[in-house]
Amino acid sequence: MSFSEQSQNKVFDGVLTKYAFTSSALGGLETKINVFIPPKASASAKAPVLYYLAGLTCTEDNGAQKGAFFEAAAQEGIAIVFPDTSPRGANINGENESWDFGTGAGFYLNATKSPWNKYYNMYDFVTKELPDKLKASDLPLDLEKASIFGHSMGGHGALVLYLREFGTYRSVSAFSPICHPVACPWGEKAFNGYLEGGVEAGKEYDAVELLSKLGKTNVDILVDCGLADNFYKQKQLLPETLSEAAKKAGIDANRVQVNLRDGYDHSYFFISTFGAEHIRWHAKFLRA
Amino acid sequence: MSFSEQSQNKVFDGVLTKYAFTSSALGGLETKINVFIPPKASASAKAPVLYYLAGLTCTEDNGAQKGAFFEAAAQEGIAIVFPDTSPRGANINGENESWDFGTGAGFYLNATKSPWNKYYNMYDFVTKELPDKLKASDLPLDLEKASIFGHSMGGHGALVLYLREFGTYRSVSAFSPICHPVACPWGEKAFNGYLEGGVEAGKEYDAVELLSKLGKTNVDILVDCGLADNFYKQKQLLPETLSEAAKKAGIDANRVQVNLRDGYDHSYFFISTFGAEHIRWHAKFLRA
Repeated sequence: MSFSEQSQNKVFDGVLTKYAFTSSALGGLETKINVFIPPKASASAKAPVLYYLAGLTCTEDNGAQKGAFFEAAAQEGIAIVFPDTSPRGANINGENESWDFGTGAGFYLNATKSPWNKYYNMYDFVTKELPDKLKASDLPLDLEKASIFGHSMGGHGALVLYLREFGTYRSVSAFSPICHPVACPWGEKAFNGYLEGGVEAGKEYDAVELLSKLGKTNVDILVDCGLADNFYKQKQLLPETLSEAAKKAGIDANRVQVNLRDGYDHSYFFISTFGAEHIRWHAKFLRA
Repeated sequence: MSFSEQSQNKVFDGVLTKYAFTSSALGGLETKINVFIPPKASASAKAPVLYYLAGLTCTEDNGAQKGAFFEAAAQEGIAIVFPDTSPRGANINGENESWDFGTGAGFYLNATKSPWNKYYNMYDFVTKELPDKLKASDLPLDLEKASIFGHSMGGHGALVLYLREFGTYRSVSAFSPICHPVACPWGEKAFNGYLEGGVEAGKEYDAVELLSKLGKTNVDILVDCGLADNFYKQKQLLPETLSEAAKKAGIDANRVQVNLRDGYDHSYFFISTFGAEHIRWHAKFLRA
């Protein structure tokens, strides 16, 4: 039930710890997370929490090692929680056949197709089980103050969790997110593979659909996407559809900021360049 | 002879490019480097160069991906060149048997023992062949303004190159360097394996020995080492011996700064925490 410490590193005067624990949302499998606690956080001065959801093929480590998030997070006094991107070791037939489905590709949804539905429930894991486990731990986290961000598939996850659990997260940001998965090959493959209703059921996990349904609301969304991103060029990300949906819903344009960045690609070099900006943007909401 | 571009990423408005080329110092094997060119560098405004030497088991990628060097380097207008840590694919018997000797562990020396001496000449590679190749390229680099830094085995390399080629590099810094390799297990293994004269011959590649021989001189050396570093505890690094040698030689204490950092370990989390400080320290010398 409880966290088992795997490793610990001091970074920017804060502490990054990797924990392992058994997850019921993930069918009883062991999962790992990284947690960054900023300096000066304590039981009497708990830190607000920013969740980081990583992209396809990644683990709890990529953002922690390559995102360059910790200097700004330490300065702003924000904790960052990095979950994994899927269950590991479910041993489902076909689980490890492709890099964009199965292991490393949980898409932050609750699967409804058997046998995936026993293990592939990253939506419940990130929105319910993980905060519950963190609350039950003695980590100095103020879980009532939470925001969320992510990259690519994790950007999709961050947007979807923010919009579906509206009010739970104070702000959402994303690097190169999959904005409209029902209309791109990655999303179609994932929804057809994990969901009984396929792509139609996938609308429940589609940021553009959810934003349209939410309508004119005071959202706080920040997106950065590189124009030299091959997945942008291949129309996997479709950030323009998010801006269009916001406009159509009558949402104030500066509450859904979508920045297209000249020359940047899909890599962590791009993320690291804008990482501190995202942290400081979330800090406005988390420390309000 | 010339650089073959492998990949390119925009980062902090600068450009990181990976090149492959054939190296004569490394016995005709192909080697790879990463080169970061800061924004605004051009043929008429060439950037000074900082070489980064990585540690055991690493490649040209570790510092580029995890060091968090590029924000400061972009701001200071400094290029960073990341060579690999050894030749690759020499196919010498025993080359891949241990993580601290052979592949990934070139120790920045010129081997004299056969068959290593045909390939394992990272000293000549970094001090001669690499600058020559960079000069012959059309990259906007001011190679007359060069400094060097590194981590662990690469910190050893940086210190040794700075002290042996005194005057070539304006400043040297290191994270967790192997300061006195003739007196630690890593150094003993490397020198006995690569050098005809073993550890005795290794004195020519030992920062403490070289600094002592150099005597009272205006060096500019900055070292950071974590007190929670397991290799520090195992006496592989011996940073105190560097301070003692400087003191004994009568060198001004603020010209050999050795900072022991409470709670930090040997990882890139430590490096990333102090990376920008090192870059800005080198910038004082490189832009003077």
